Amino acid sequence: MSFAIARPDQNLAADLQRRIDAKTKPLGALGRLEALALQIGLVQQSLSPTLQQPHMLVFAGDHGAAKAGVSAYPQDVTWQMVENFLAGGAAINVFARQMGMALSVIDAGVVHDFGERAGLVSAKIAAGTANYLEEPAMDAAQRDQALARGHALASGLARQGCNVMGFGEMGIGNTAAASLLTHCLSGVDLDSVIGRGTGLDDAGLARKRELLARAVARGGRPADPLEALAQYGGFEIAMMAGAMIGAAQAGCLLLIDGFIVTSALLVAHALSPEILDYCVFAHRSHEQGHAVQLAHLRAEPLVELDLRLGEGTGAALVYPLVQAAVNFLNEMASFESAGVSGKA
Amino acid sequence: MSFAIARPDQNLAADLQRRIDAKTKPLGALGRLEALALQIGLVQQSLSPTLQQPHMLVFAGDHGAAKAGVSAYPQDVTWQMVENFLAGGAAINVFARQMGMALSVIDAGVVHDFGERAGLVSAKIAAGTANYLEEPAMDAAQRDQALARGHALASGLARQGCNVMGFGEMGIGNTAAASLLTHCLSGVDLDSVIGRGTGLDDAGLARKRELLARAVARGGRPADPLEALAQYGGFEIAMMAGAMIGAAQAGCLLLIDGFIVTSALLVAHALSPEILDYCVFAHRSHEQGHAVQLAHLRAEPLVELDLRLGEGTGAALVYPLVQAAVNFLNEMASFESAGVSGKA
Repeated sequence: MSFAIARPDQNLAADLQRRIDAKTKPLGALGRLEALALQIGLVQQSLSPTLQQPHMLVFAGDHGAAKAGVSAYPQDVTWQMVENFLAGGAAINVFARQMGMALSVIDAGVVHDFGERAGLVSAKIAAGTANYLEEPAMDAAQRDQALARGHALASGLARQGCNVMGFGEMGIGNTAAASLLTHCLSGVDLDSVIGRGTGLDDAGLARKRELLARAVARGGRPADPLEALAQYGGFEIAMMAGAMIGAAQAGCLLLIDGFIVTSALLVAHALSPEILDYCVFAHRSHEQGHAVQLAHLRAEPLVELDLRLGEGTGAALVYPLVQAAVNFLNEMASFESAGVSGKA
Repeated sequence: MSFAIARPDQNLAADLQRRIDAKTKPLGALGRLEALALQIGLVQQSLSPTLQQPHMLVFAGDHGAAKAGVSAYPQDVTWQMVENFLAGGAAINVFARQMGMALSVIDAGVVHDFGERAGLVSAKIAAGTANYLEEPAMDAAQRDQALARGHALASGLARQGCNVMGFGEMGIGNTAAASLLTHCLSGVDLDSVIGRGTGLDDAGLARKRELLARAVARGGRPADPLEALAQYGGFEIAMMAGAMIGAAQAGCLLLIDGFIVTSALLVAHALSPEILDYCVFAHRSHEQGHAVQLAHLRAEPLVELDLRLGEGTGAALVYPLVQAAVNFLNEMASFESAGVSGKA
């Protein structure tokens, strides 16, 4: 697979801006939605963009380091939550249903045998990563396989007509992996990008910091995204990074969720910075390292709702705002068509 | 009409919180949505609240002071925009349609004869207010009539089964009226609550400041909400305040939009502070006085999207978040029902 992503042609920008400015509202009065409409028009190279077959991809995987105690929850919660997804009872099920988004759950590397299951994409690389406290989380072949499977998945969805994908994840211990990746790829010091995850107390947070410092003492701080991914990544993170690249190459809009999803985007961005033109940043998570990632990417998310759940919930929650940007562009009258006077 | 509003019984709060905490997510991980779910459950006195017949009420009215030059747009834009609402081409039409909200446009006092029109509620008090630079904007009888008509409108919708109302407005010059009301009811100095409205340039802003200072030199700074309303209010603002009180008395949830809608809420709040229990603050507007109002009410809006359009657009845009709060409460599995392990 190639990582190359082309920037959308910017020539349409002036026409799009004129169309936005002609709508019956003061110039700029729809704020962030106007910037979104412009972005989506450019991504789709259309003055009348539409959102087709919106799809939420939730990648699940386990982490060898989870057993060392980097999370407040036991590792079994990963597969139990996948079962919850398949039964329709998790937050992301509720929100994807509400927003009219299709939902795919991808087993990228959960320590559990699900068998063949409706709604589950079996793409397991292995039953959990290796423990990065002792050795690299994955080898190069596993990493490349994860990237390729994600890429193929997103490319396939785009071929079937999907043009907007949300990204989410599940994996006990994956805020720790995201912290390590963020440390490597942003250059910001480790402690500043380690948070409480699903709810560590002070002692748990101190232990997580100590464990991750040991991981870095062993594996170093590779600035190369592929090397960092192999050292510390999760299979769900690697597969998501591949899917993001595939989605952007296919001209889809990407809805970026919180801390772990953004760690996958850091990898994709380091491989191909042009991916940012395709990204909508949904929300500023309560997990502290997320602000560091957003600053690194110079990204300003749409909302801040103190979410720290993952699963793609933030991405699903902002989908109506993205739809609203497209709708005002297509459906609002212009000053001329509505016979409304302009500024005095 | 009585202004008295009863606080929702708080006894259900503990049971609601337990229901929220039992959902398959870390404690508090849905952030602002969890507080919303608790609030809506209390407003409805139900562990399984639902949103029924969501309705957006857009009140339109003209201002005598508009001719003095407090707005960037000519007064005719008020009736032209009402026509745009009736034709379905304005931003609020697009967003209300998308969100599945019914939309009522109320002529509270536009300088235009619309005749009988589908979709328009004829509740005109007069063809525009008087010019508060010269005399009070309305007399006590007009004010009380506006409050009563708004109250009757909201009460009637609630009787028909609506339990969530959004509030919006249209009226050239009404950011000026909102500034004066905010000055009176918050006590904050006048210049701090005057903004650019629909887009005044520096000279226009200076002129608006000078005019509003003259208005206050004439009419004073009444701290009494009914007196302030008569001095400076618009008919759309007065009718909206009455509707808010009627909606809260009926146990509805109120979606509060931006600067002008919040000025109506300042009036309602001064009459009956308990109204806040029923209010969801949608967004922080780009209009500078809005932050002053929010601070006065100790309110934290859900989003900040740099909107400054009015019409109720911000309230409509957050409706999916409010729906999401209800949905997660009703539809998510619990740790027990899903067989997911708790914290280690």
